[in-house]
Amino acid sequence: MTGLSRRELIGGVAVSGFVVSAASAAETEQPPFGPAPPPLAGSDLPSFRFPLGAQPTHQFDGGTAKEATVEQFPVSEKLAGVYMTLEPGALRELHWHANAAEWAYVLDGRCRVTTIDPNNQCEIVDFGPGDVWYFPRGHGHSIQGIGPGTCTFILVFDNGYFSEFGTFSISDWVGHTPPEVLARNFGVPAATFANFPKKEVYIATGPVPPPLPADPAPGTRNAPALTHRYQLHAAKPDMFAGGTMRTVSEREFPISTTMTGAMLTIKPGGLRELHWHPNAAEWQFYVKGSARMTVFGSHGRARTDEFAVGDVGYVPQGYGHYIENTGSEDMEVVLVLNNGTYEAVSITGWMAANPDLLLATNFKVPESVFAKFPQDAAVMPE
Amino acid sequence: MTGLSRRELIGGVAVSGFVVSAASAAETEQPPFGPAPPPLAGSDLPSFRFPLGAQPTHQFDGGTAKEATVEQFPVSEKLAGVYMTLEPGALRELHWHANAAEWAYVLDGRCRVTTIDPNNQCEIVDFGPGDVWYFPRGHGHSIQGIGPGTCTFILVFDNGYFSEFGTFSISDWVGHTPPEVLARNFGVPAATFANFPKKEVYIATGPVPPPLPADPAPGTRNAPALTHRYQLHAAKPDMFAGGTMRTVSEREFPISTTMTGAMLTIKPGGLRELHWHPNAAEWQFYVKGSARMTVFGSHGRARTDEFAVGDVGYVPQGYGHYIENTGSEDMEVVLVLNNGTYEAVSITGWMAANPDLLLATNFKVPESVFAKFPQDAAVMPE
Amino acid sequence: MTGLSRRELIGGVAVSGFVVSAASAAETEQPPFGPAPPPLAGSDLPSFRFPLGAQPTHQFDGGTAKEATVEQFPVSEKLAGVYMTLEPGALRELHWHANAAEWAYVLDGRCRVTTIDPNNQCEIVDFGPGDVWYFPRGHGHSIQGIGPGTCTFILVFDNGYFSEFGTFSISDWVGHTPPEVLARNFGVPAATFANFPKKEVYIATGPVPPPLPADPAPGTRNAPALTHRYQLHAAKPDMFAGGTMRTVSEREFPISTTMTGAMLTIKPGGLRELHWHPNAAEWQFYVKGSARMTVFGSHGRARTDEFAVGDVGYVPQGYGHYIENTGSEDMEVVLVLNNGTYEAVSITGWMAANPDLLLATNFKVPESVFAKFPQDAAVMPE
Repeated sequence: MTGLSRRELIGGVAVSGFVVSAASAAETEQPPFGPAPPPLAGSDLPSFRFPLGAQPTHQFDGGTAKEATVEQFPVSEKLAGVYMTLEPGALRELHWHANAAEWAYVLDGRCRVTTIDPNNQCEIVDFGPGDVWYFPRGHGHSIQGIGPGTCTFILVFDNGYFSEFGTFSISDWVGHTPPEVLARNFGVPAATFANFPKKEVYIATGPVPPPLPADPAPGTRNAPALTHRYQLHAAKPDMFAGGTMRTVSEREFPISTTMTGAMLTIKPGGLRELHWHPNAAEWQFYVKGSARMTVFGSHGRARTDEFAVGDVGYVPQGYGHYIENTGSEDMEVVLVLNNGTYEAVSITGWMAANPDLLLATNFKVPESVFAKFPQDAAVMPE
Repeated sequence: MTGLSRRELIGGVAVSGFVVSAASAAETEQPPFGPAPPPLAGSDLPSFRFPLGAQPTHQFDGGTAKEATVEQFPVSEKLAGVYMTLEPGALRELHWHANAAEWAYVLDGRCRVTTIDPNNQCEIVDFGPGDVWYFPRGHGHSIQGIGPGTCTFILVFDNGYFSEFGTFSISDWVGHTPPEVLARNFGVPAATFANFPKKEVYIATGPVPPPLPADPAPGTRNAPALTHRYQLHAAKPDMFAGGTMRTVSEREFPISTTMTGAMLTIKPGGLRELHWHPNAAEWQFYVKGSARMTVFGSHGRARTDEFAVGDVGYVPQGYGHYIENTGSEDMEVVLVLNNGTYEAVSITGWMAANPDLLLATNFKVPESVFAKFPQDAAVMPE
Repeated sequence: MTGLSRRELIGGVAVSGFVVSAASAAETEQPPFGPAPPPLAGSDLPSFRFPLGAQPTHQFDGGTAKEATVEQFPVSEKLAGVYMTLEPGALRELHWHANAAEWAYVLDGRCRVTTIDPNNQCEIVDFGPGDVWYFPRGHGHSIQGIGPGTCTFILVFDNGYFSEFGTFSISDWVGHTPPEVLARNFGVPAATFANFPKKEVYIATGPVPPPLPADPAPGTRNAPALTHRYQLHAAKPDMFAGGTMRTVSEREFPISTTMTGAMLTIKPGGLRELHWHPNAAEWQFYVKGSARMTVFGSHGRARTDEFAVGDVGYVPQGYGHYIENTGSEDMEVVLVLNNGTYEAVSITGWMAANPDLLLATNFKVPESVFAKFPQDAAVMPE
């Protein structure tokens, strides 16, 4: 961890010369009925770390993107992610995802998001650092940097099968529709479309739009009942001896029916204690500091990985895990679970709920061993 | 389009000499978590047209059937269909589907349907042209032509995996049960079953049943809370410049929890505008006139097919599409989506919800280009 | 059926010398969208019987276990089971299942169960013969024999993919966590863990715990809203001419959202009539007497198997079936369905709901044949 900014750390090596159709695919259901997925079926657990920050960056005019899907990170079957930057005025064009809902966290800078839903209701809202958005599967949206400076954010999808076939861009669609059809569709002359792009724009550059008027805000005439923005940074955190956690589930953010997010801060020397999530897999993006995570996969299998800024982590549904801050500063990580309801069970609370006699039998040690164990769950011990 | 009737057009070449166990299979869930299905994973889109009307007809004593499943039409993973005819008195025997709900639309003639549900509640109702039925997965039912003339209808199942192993017929079951067991089951002598069929009847012929008494209708003593019949033809249509649409979702027809249907009429020269369905795949049966549909599949992929009476069309969940009437008369198509809630987003409404400045940046053209675009969604422009 | 006890009959040959990580895996959803599973796709049906009682027994210090999963019994794709015994004081240690909910029926003896849920709520309850428990997927639990005598029970999981990778045991987890991490997690010295087991205990032996105080019961300070225990044996049975059935669905036992259970008793010569379950597969454990079950799988496929005490049976969702008592004493079988709502349709009720004229057409026999058929459903005829 040098004097480089987070963006420099994560940005990695820029590559160009090819266009990717990035951010896409994911589904919202619980894991399907069936056997363990192949990456988790062996006698040893695979790594649960993917160095997203160190991957080549796809460079566009006005922005960058890099992605983590099952193709790059096979264990992440239920969730995928993208790290993206947009310069002021740069527009991640109007698009939708046919196979995933999208959850996002803004790391730096500001952007404006437009959305539309199947009731023809739209919302235009500005986002800043620490803000979260959620778009249900198939809802149309765009993202534009509004400065000052670069806007950086992470996108998380509730389907690890991230592919070019999940993102539908308006320029791609219009560019592949005959002008005479467009003319009939929009009631304008076919010549109107003569200079429209013939293929996907993906990120376009343009002027920074003017500020949103205060009253009435444009685009809010027909606003949806459920807003797409949740200001996670402004939420009151849960405080623990070893750190803090801000959580945003469907309860706090009603539109977010298929994902829960959290910003977890662990103090130096702190520990996110041993726990598991009965109802969800967890996708992680390490934002600050350094960490170590150990994942327990049953049958004697445990795996420890070290995480730095820009790394992605993953925990399969129901797998035990804990995270240590291994550095001398606060460690921050964004967590995203593929369920709108947050559930976790901690080993401390579990053991506290069982009689010492039972624990003594279970662990084959004297009952007195447990006299000094905590009597309640302790999410982040000191 | 000659002087032939719709039934003659669709009926196609009659084949006989073999028995198929037709109408079956389908499931009610959203697409499972996973990668794109193989037929949609290539760099080019496959055809979204299946000429059901031109397929060989399975001829039975009293009726005919022809089917469209993933076996014949691999892209139609989420929905399958059957085109069936019944002469007066001909009975599509008592049966149920273990792996699909069934939605139907009567094209011509009249039939009587009997149903039973797990609460032992039954309903006997007559259907005519433009009527729709829905049977939840696993509920027992029969269909009998009641004349005058042939009854023709299409059946749609919410599972493209259409196979002989999804349809359970009462004659097949009884024929494979020992008479002594049947005797105990029904409390009658074993000899009662001596002349029962030993294998599946599928379609049986018999007299046309008498009219249903008006009050009380037979079989309605223990009628279910939710009727299986919806008279779509009698519903008030949504009117557009270019045509009309009658829609029947769970909202209008509460039993239909896993499918939505619609009858769409497009005037000559009209267009069902560019749109997509965030929550469902779409299965189509072309009833009248001629049409052209273009499907947009992201990543520069678009596919145009021409449709005539008797053709089946399919649009994967979330894929963009539009339909043109290419003939000189009204074009009619029955649409079925695999979700009880109807959702659609139109490109016109989407663009209208975004500022012209954003559109100008997105499409790299001057802002003034969008001054004359519609300010609202227009489902079927003139 | 000799003078041997049920446990002796089921226990079978004891094997030892290897440790299995038993009871695990299962999911709670309806069958996924797709084709028929391979074991059911052939022209002949496979056997629906698995002789669990005759399998080798895995012997532990304090208990035994044997299992039926898709590995041993390929047709049982949606449900798996375990037969387990615990001596007084023997503890099936603290564990959870990452991929299944667990339903259980106590056959003999008594045990104490402890549970914890994601709201940190716990319950400690004693179970005796005829009691049922249900643990939602991922909730922590333990089971301890409390005597007198051996406690025997069957566990049923709503996922046939039963593997060592679905059971997460606390000793396995703690044993694979560094003592210094445990020290920080629990706030105790690292030396505390010096004598803890280094690998999975599975079943531990210890003293029988003291009786639960009557008021307040320990562990109930923070009891969950929904109890995990249902006393099925004490429920009022449904009475039929040929036997009785006690059913426990989500309606009677609200926590049991993904499974329904029943205890079915058929008198000598009695029959559980021809019926099917539209919404669930069925897993069976034969407890007493002897039986014959015939499963109807459509397309002319029917399969008859004979069942004795300790056998497991299985019926795929929507498949027709009936069960005969082939012995001279009452036959008892525990049934478990993978749906919290109980649904069944009987052929008797179905036929009674249809006019005799229709039945005559369907079965190609005179209408008078049906005059003496039952006018209502008869779940278990004499």
